[in-house]
Parts: sequence; structure tokens; C-alpha cells
Amino acid sequence: MKKFDIYEDPHRRFNPLIKEWVLVSPHRSKRPWQGQNEVVATNTLPAYDPECYLCPGNVRANGAINDQYENSFVFENDFAALKQEEIDQEVVEENTFFRAKSERGISRVVCFSPNHNLTLPELEVSDIENVITAWQREYTNLGAIDYINHVQIFENKGSVMGCSNPHPHGQIWAQSSLPTQVEKTQNSLSEYFEKNKSNLLLDYLKQELELKERIVIENDHFVALVPFWAIWPFETMIVAKRHVTKITNFEAVEKTAFATILKQLTTKYDNLFNTSFPYSSGIHQAPTDGNEHPEWQFHVHFYPPLLRSATVKKFMVGYEMMGESQRDITPEKSAETLRDCSDIHYKNR
Amino acid sequence: MKKFDIYEDPHRRFNPLIKEWVLVSPHRSKRPWQGQNEVVATNTLPAYDPECYLCPGNVRANGAINDQYENSFVFENDFAALKQEEIDQEVVEENTFFRAKSERGISRVVCFSPNHNLTLPELEVSDIENVITAWQREYTNLGAIDYINHVQIFENKGSVMGCSNPHPHGQIWAQSSLPTQVEKTQNSLSEYFEKNKSNLLLDYLKQELELKERIVIENDHFVALVPFWAIWPFETMIVAKRHVTKITNFEAVEKTAFATILKQLTTKYDNLFNTSFPYSSGIHQAPTDGNEHPEWQFHVHFYPPLLRSATVKKFMVGYEMMGESQRDITPEKSAETLRDCSDIHYKNR
Ligand SMILES: O=P(O)(O)O[C@H]1O[C@H](CO)[C@@H](O)[C@H](O)[C@H]1O
Ligand SMILES: O=P(O)(O)O[C@H]1O[C@H](CO)[C@@H](O)[C@H](O)[C@H]1O
Repeated sequence: MKKFDIYEDPHRRFNPLIKEWVLVSPHRSKRPWQGQNEVVATNTLPAYDPECYLCPGNVRANGAINDQYENSFVFENDFAALKQEEIDQEVVEENTFFRAKSERGISRVVCFSPNHNLTLPELEVSDIENVITAWQREYTNLGAIDYINHVQIFENKGSVMGCSNPHPHGQIWAQSSLPTQVEKTQNSLSEYFEKNKSNLLLDYLKQELELKERIVIENDHFVALVPFWAIWPFETMIVAKRHVTKITNFEAVEKTAFATILKQLTTKYDNLFNTSFPYSSGIHQAPTDGNEHPEWQFHVHFYPPLLRSATVKKFMVGYEMMGESQRDITPEKSAETLRDCSDIHYKNR
Repeated sequence: MKKFDIYEDPHRRFNPLIKEWVLVSPHRSKRPWQGQNEVVATNTLPAYDPECYLCPGNVRANGAINDQYENSFVFENDFAALKQEEIDQEVVEENTFFRAKSERGISRVVCFSPNHNLTLPELEVSDIENVITAWQREYTNLGAIDYINHVQIFENKGSVMGCSNPHPHGQIWAQSSLPTQVEKTQNSLSEYFEKNKSNLLLDYLKQELELKERIVIENDHFVALVPFWAIWPFETMIVAKRHVTKITNFEAVEKTAFATILKQLTTKYDNLFNTSFPYSSGIHQAPTDGNEHPEWQFHVHFYPPLLRSATVKKFMVGYEMMGESQRDITPEKSAETLRDCSDIHYKNR
């Protein structure tokens, strides 16, 4: 019988954060592509677009006027998925099948720069530090609201990720409940902490730093790696090295180191296929329910869809929706590829 | 304080099959769309395409020649994600972080018709019955293989769903483990069965048939409905009315009724935006592990991405990936919209 070779043979890997498996098919990366190609935006954008609802001083759909902001700018989402209005917490719960409950929350938009045509990798480290300051302020202020127990900071980049405006920006959805994916992570982290009296992600990071094969970038305070259980072809995770449960715990050097690794990682992404690399990213950190949460460790997920080129993405469809996430290229190979990408943005070469 | 109105206010609903919540934002369906538009294939396809690797008699990439088939045709996937080769079941399991195990399986392609330019809604009911016969045969034969414990039958339709060839076809991935999503469902069904000594989906169906507001189509043997916990804008589920755990349990009338409801539902889908409606669909039924599985009930999921028109889809990105699935239009409104769609295909009008 053939001996199992994790770099060659079909296998499943387990994600201890959400307790789900991923199917890995290393041999499959050779299949030809005859499917849909994404459209790459090649036209150069202006630094200021009078039609953009995120540019400084412009009027938004609801008549509000943006500040003449100089670094980051935060405002309430005009088409928020969540509302602040207090609604009776009536729970419709008939025989387990029709369980529903009202949900209260706040959605905000965070502009990363007044400049319409820049993206994270093209910003200066100090500009990114300003964005981090905005995230810290929002996490603190939103988290301080009585009914807000979770603050989800995220970015959708690129039209293929449903982003409707190229102006560099992210969003924050803060709400009363822990969202499904976060609740899974919460349960795993708590369980591990109770059992081992230590932090799951810090223990994992320690082993990855010894093995080295999935590390993409390491600096004094942060590591970017392709998780052993990554589902997207070039999925990565940034983890803080010191035990920090939330973004507001950062010391000044950590803030700079975080800004630096964000710039480096997104630069490598852009260099991978010489294109503005689309992704959804999101910060996972301690809930804002007033508890201490020593089981948490600050980390950022990057879920980028591209697989083979600037135009060919991985589709998480049929089998993936009905059965299980599936990947072709191994996480080890992806990490190596990203490691080998230059830290100098292709536009500046 | 405002009284909670499930048709108007932001809320979460619970999916008892996989125990996950979905965020529903009914008020949000009014937001303007400035994002990516999908490309609609408008060119008419020939009935036979000499370049298509699925058309009868054509040569595939690996040199194999397709049968001159007259209804359905099944062959081994040339770029399978799973392999039949027996591999040592070695489990790499170091300190819970690097859990992996080899996985054995078989991937097949099922052509629905020799005709290159037809899709499910355009096939005759008797043609669809032939496809069901092929699914039954595959479920039986693959399920009979000793190491195969789960047979996932699914279809990716449309290039937006990663489908690389418009020739009407689906796939089957059969494997030794229960895939993640199926395992969740298995656990929920078993738990309910043990607790209530009855079948979760049949009990749910009974209540939906009384409430009526989420039913799209009903015939003597099957119901198509928008589940209370649907995440995709026009997601539906077809459920058998009689207790049937698997596709091979169908009586002749049930087979015809299933073919009929498949044709009706996909016709309504095409009529919704006057376009060949993209989706991933998949059959969930009893595992093939040799046990009886009375907790199971045969059902089919349809996950279609379109939201507002033939070119605007719902993106399950940032918040959805990091937090929780989110929908704008309510399941009740979607069911009503689909119910109102004609049963006569727009091309035949
Ligand atoms: O097998 P296909 O049609 O080439 O590929 C498509 O379906 C598969 C199964 O859902 C997915 O893994 C692929 O990402 C998708 O592009
Ligand atoms: O808020 P936006 O950018 O209009 O919308 C985008 O991000 C949201 C949050 O991930 C998603 O719910 C939408 O489907 C997506 O198109």
C-alpha cells in the first residue's frame, strides 16, 4: 500500500479554530482552465473622482457631505445591514424550526486615504498607522456601547469581492451577538484555554515558527503565514507574537510593525500576479462584552480568491457548498510562492 | 420600544440543519448597486460543438472518446479532486494543530443530455427521468463500494458558478468521509431523531405546508420551498413528502414527480430575470455506510447567487466570511416572487 504523502496525495486537514475540515487535492493543480475569466480593471484612476461617494468633500447618496479629510475618515454606512433602533428582543421560537431574534447594531465605513487611487500596499507605513488608529478608536467607542458585544472590522477589496468602489476603504459591523464564525472560534479558543491553560493561537504560532514551511513574513512583533488548514489558494493569517487580545493593546512599536506587515503582505499579493490583488480581510479579536478573554489572540484573516492568474479565481461552489471547502495547491507551496514574491510593489519597479 | 417585525427589522434566523445563524436585513434591499455586473452569455450555442469535451463522440483532454450517448452519460472525471488509489490511512496528528488524514474517493461527470445547448428546464420531463435514473445507478454502485460512505451529487450551472462548460452536466464526488456540511446535517438529524423519535425535515415540512408563505411549488410527492433560514437571495430546497432517505427509494410516480418539480423550479428560476439562471444544486441523502439512517430525508438544495437582475449577484464576502451569512430580501418575499414566476419557459413564449 502506498505511504501517505501530504504533498502529493488527496487528504483532509482540520481547522481547530472553527472545527471544520478542508479537502486538499495537490495533484489537481494541473487541470486545464476553460471556465470564466475575471475582468481586470486596467484603466488608471484619478487621485480625486468627483463621482466617488468616498472622496473628501463629496456629497453622498443621502445628501451628507464628506469631511475634507486628510488621512482616514469614518462615517455611518448609508445602507447599513444593521440598525441602532432599539427593538423588542422578542424571540420567535416555534418548535425549533422558526427561531429568529431581532439584532441591533451599527455599520460604519472607514476610508483609508483621501486619495482615490491608492490601495493598502501603496500607502506609506505612517498612513497605515493612521488607519490602525481609526480601527482602535472604533473598536473602543463601538465596544463601549452597552449592547455592542462584537466589532467586526473588515475590508472587501476588488470588484470580484463585491466591492462597489475602488476608493480604499473597509467596513465595520458592530452588533449585539457574536456572529456565527466568531462564535465557533470563541468556542474553540475557550475550550483549548480551559483544557491547556494556554492560548491556542500562540501555541500554534510557536510550532509554525519552528517548522518555518508556512511562514510568509516575520518581523519582531507579527507573523504572516498560510495556515495549515487554509481553504483559499493564497489565504493567509497575520498573528501577533505577544499575547494581545485586541487592537487597543498595541504598543507604539507594535502598531508600526503591524502597519509594516500589512504593507508587505499586500505588496506580495499584488506582485503575485502583477495585479491589484482582490481579497476579503478581517480582524478577529476579543468580543466587547466586558470580559477579559485571555483565550483570544489578535489575528487577521486574508481570503483572496485568485488561483492561477489575475483573471482565474477559485470557485467555492457545488461540492464546496454542499460538502466541504476544497483546494488544489498545498498551503506549503502557496507560502513558498508568497515568500518568493518581492517586497517592492510592481508599479514601483 | 418598537415591536419586532420580522418582515421589516434586522434579525437573525437559525438553521437547524447545520446549526448556524443568518443575518437578515429586510430594509436593505433598497440600496443602490454600483458594483460589479456579471457578463451574460447571449450568443446561441449549437446543439453539437466539436470543441466540447462533453458532446457525444468527442475526444477528451486525456484521449478518451465519449460514447455516442442518447440520453445521459457518466464518466470518470479526468481531473478528479479525489483518487481511488488505496493510501495508508496514516493520520498526521501533532498536538491538535496539524491534523490531516488521507482521503479516498471517486469523481464522476454526469452529462444530462447529448444536446449541447439545453439546460434542465429545457429538457423534457422524460429526459430528466433519465438523469434521475443515472443518479440512482451511481448512488447504488458507488455506495456499494466498501470504502465509499458518502455520495455527493451536485450541479454547478453557469460560468459565474465556476462551471467551465455550458453542456448540461453535473458531478458526483464519492468519498470515504462525510464532508463537513453533511456531517453537521447528520448530527442535527440524528439528535432530533433521538430526541423526538421523528424526522426533522418531515416535521418541518408539515409546518411549512400549513403556513404556506414560503412554499414555491407543491405536487403530490414533492415540495419546493424557500427555507426559513435561507442564505442566498433565491435559495430553495426540494423535499420529498413521503419518508424517503435516498434517491433509490423512489417509486415510479415519485420519479416522475421529482423530474417535474425540477423542471418547474428551474423554469421559474430562468423566468425570474429572463436569463439562464446560475446556481449550485446538490442532493443531500443518507450516507452509504451500510446503516439504515431513518433520521434522513431526501432533499435538494439550490444555491443561486443572483440578487437583483441577470447581472447583479449577492456577494458572500467580508462580513459573511468573517462573521455570518447575510441576506437583504426576506425568504417570504423571495418565495412569493418565485411563486409568481411563470411555469412556461421564457424562450417558449
Ligand atoms: O470540476 P469543475 O467544474 O472544473 O470545477 C468547479 O466545480 C468544482 C466542484 O464544485 C470546484 O472545486 C471548482 O472550484 C469549480 O471551478
Ligand atoms: O457593503 P457593500 O460594499 O456595498 O457590499 C459588500 O459587502 C457586504 C459586507 O461583506 C456584503 O454583504 C455585500 O454582499 C457586498 O456586496
